[in-house]
Amino acid sequence: MITLSVELGSRTYPIHIGPDLLKDRALVRTLIPARQVMVVTNTVVAPLYLRALTDCLVGSTVHTLVLPDGEAHKTLASYEKILSAMLEAKFDRSCMVVALGGGVVGDVAGFAAASYQRGVGLVQVPTTLLAQVDSSVGGKTAVNHPLGKNMIGAFYQPQAVLIDLSTLETLAAREFSAGLAEVVKVGLISDYEFFCWLEANRERLLARESAAITHAVEQSCRSKAAVVTLDEREAGARALLNLGHTFGHGLENVLGYGVWLHGEAVAAGICMAARMSHRLGYIDEGAVHRIVAVFAQLGLPTHRPASVSPAQLMAAMQIDKKASEGRIRLVLLQALGRAALSADYAEAALHATLSDP
Amino acid sequence: MITLSVELGSRTYPIHIGPDLLKDRALVRTLIPARQVMVVTNTVVAPLYLRALTDCLVGSTVHTLVLPDGEAHKTLASYEKILSAMLEAKFDRSCMVVALGGGVVGDVAGFAAASYQRGVGLVQVPTTLLAQVDSSVGGKTAVNHPLGKNMIGAFYQPQAVLIDLSTLETLAAREFSAGLAEVVKVGLISDYEFFCWLEANRERLLARESAAITHAVEQSCRSKAAVVTLDEREAGARALLNLGHTFGHGLENVLGYGVWLHGEAVAAGICMAARMSHRLGYIDEGAVHRIVAVFAQLGLPTHRPASVSPAQLMAAMQIDKKASEGRIRLVLLQALGRAALSADYAEAALHATLSDP
Repeated sequence: MITLSVELGSRTYPIHIGPDLLKDRALVRTLIPARQVMVVTNTVVAPLYLRALTDCLVGSTVHTLVLPDGEAHKTLASYEKILSAMLEAKFDRSCMVVALGGGVVGDVAGFAAASYQRGVGLVQVPTTLLAQVDSSVGGKTAVNHPLGKNMIGAFYQPQAVLIDLSTLETLAAREFSAGLAEVVKVGLISDYEFFCWLEANRERLLARESAAITHAVEQSCRSKAAVVTLDEREAGARALLNLGHTFGHGLENVLGYGVWLHGEAVAAGICMAARMSHRLGYIDEGAVHRIVAVFAQLGLPTHRPASVSPAQLMAAMQIDKKASEGRIRLVLLQALGRAALSADYAEAALHATLSDP
Repeated sequence: MITLSVELGSRTYPIHIGPDLLKDRALVRTLIPARQVMVVTNTVVAPLYLRALTDCLVGSTVHTLVLPDGEAHKTLASYEKILSAMLEAKFDRSCMVVALGGGVVGDVAGFAAASYQRGVGLVQVPTTLLAQVDSSVGGKTAVNHPLGKNMIGAFYQPQAVLIDLSTLETLAAREFSAGLAEVVKVGLISDYEFFCWLEANRERLLARESAAITHAVEQSCRSKAAVVTLDEREAGARALLNLGHTFGHGLENVLGYGVWLHGEAVAAGICMAARMSHRLGYIDEGAVHRIVAVFAQLGLPTHRPASVSPAQLMAAMQIDKKASEGRIRLVLLQALGRAALSADYAEAALHATLSDP
């Protein structure tokens, strides 16, 4: 087992990474010591891993809320369902919420933990690659609103993140690839060497080779933890993690949440950010080709789908959180392995990129 | 103008107290510098003070959400209404929320500010005595749930609190008295001298004499600010501010939110806590009489209403946040001017107190 740490003073917490961690009852019990536990999961994950988790919590009052699967359920309605279930169970402020599932479960359960009686303990147990390498670490919680993704939420750190790599064995291929999009993002933002490693090891990753996956998850979590320590509330460095996300959120919003997986939208969004960076003269054409090739080989989309018009995408991006004082702020690539936030770019480059077929 | 400060490191903020502050355009503009402003208020306050506020914000995009008046509207539905209005107005992360009104407006608007795009700027402009002396200071925000009061919310500090004492001139007598309940609470918890001053000056207060009101508001805010600095998230000392609130929340819950004003329920709750403290031998009968007399003279209830049974009240109190590990934690009086939190009391004293006619 690898243990990393997200250093945030009195709110520092561990990330445990390894196979079969849900079978380690002593570990799970140590991380979730509460007398009252609300486990939030979904219809796909519950039959696979819920029993293993609750078996570790013998002696506590454990309630379970099983949400339907998918981004379409990352709503205020699901959030309210969790809070109501906790109140019906008469849970007090010493209770804990455990998020067992992917990014949707983690985000909505995390926001419920953040606001139940103004905040109770939270443990993230991510079971998708995307949640393991990205969304479970760092304390961003949220639900979607019909007018925009992640528009309602809180910065709320968990007390621990438990990454059982064995749960990836049951993950659908499409979900697995979507998770790899965020892994590639890590390399592109700040670690050229890791990007090259990903290019060289994409076959091993797609074959779900244990050593390769362990390395990819560890590197991603290590990088994320370092950024969160520097900038918990996204006042600066953390914004770079949004590479591809402003385009991507726009695509998800226009397509309808859940039509594309989040990681798929991020992959296409990063390719758009790369093409725009090239237009602005930051990176050469060869770099764009390498980025697009990696995503394509991982089975991920690399372009705006024809069903989304440039105008629709532009409108959706304007409401995204990354807009500031009316201007859309974008994370752009300065090189492979180096990104920067900018609102000071030639508007024509954005429009041309949105219009790319 | 008196200016106090809530000291919370990088999140330190000022409380400005004085007459006619809403007419001070330079001050208001300095406190609310945002380009996009969402003013949340209610149907009673809007005709009185909304214009004065928005006149100060010329040049910004100002949207207004007017909630119906009353505790019955401190709901997730109102919260969602505010967030939707902000999204429809395409507000970005640099926007601010201004809560213009009483405790309900401050709590629900505060929670909306805490969660819009994971947190935007908030300024509290309390227009009721209760909000001025208590709820606008300290960062507690929340909405009610059918199963319990303030069950969903966040600790989220404002960037400033602007207390225009002139707004009290239009406050209904019943609301004014309800606010005084929290002022008396301040004296009972930690300031015997202030309690004696309140006993001696209750006529001046009820007559809304400017000097008396200024002193009462200043003392209350000063005391509250000191407690919040010590214990922002209610891990210790801050819990004492809940004197009378566990009984009071129970009463509000059983009666139905809005039947009694919050301050009225707190007054009755403090009297119950006083009688229980006497039963446990902490304070003598004379002290109980003084407490009950002050509240009665201020026109506030001092007993459980006959329509609420002891069993109903007990059940409602058990779900209150102050319960911990199954046991109801209560703030009790050790003396006039000294309170302590306890879960270690003779259960019979609680039952007898709930049964008092």
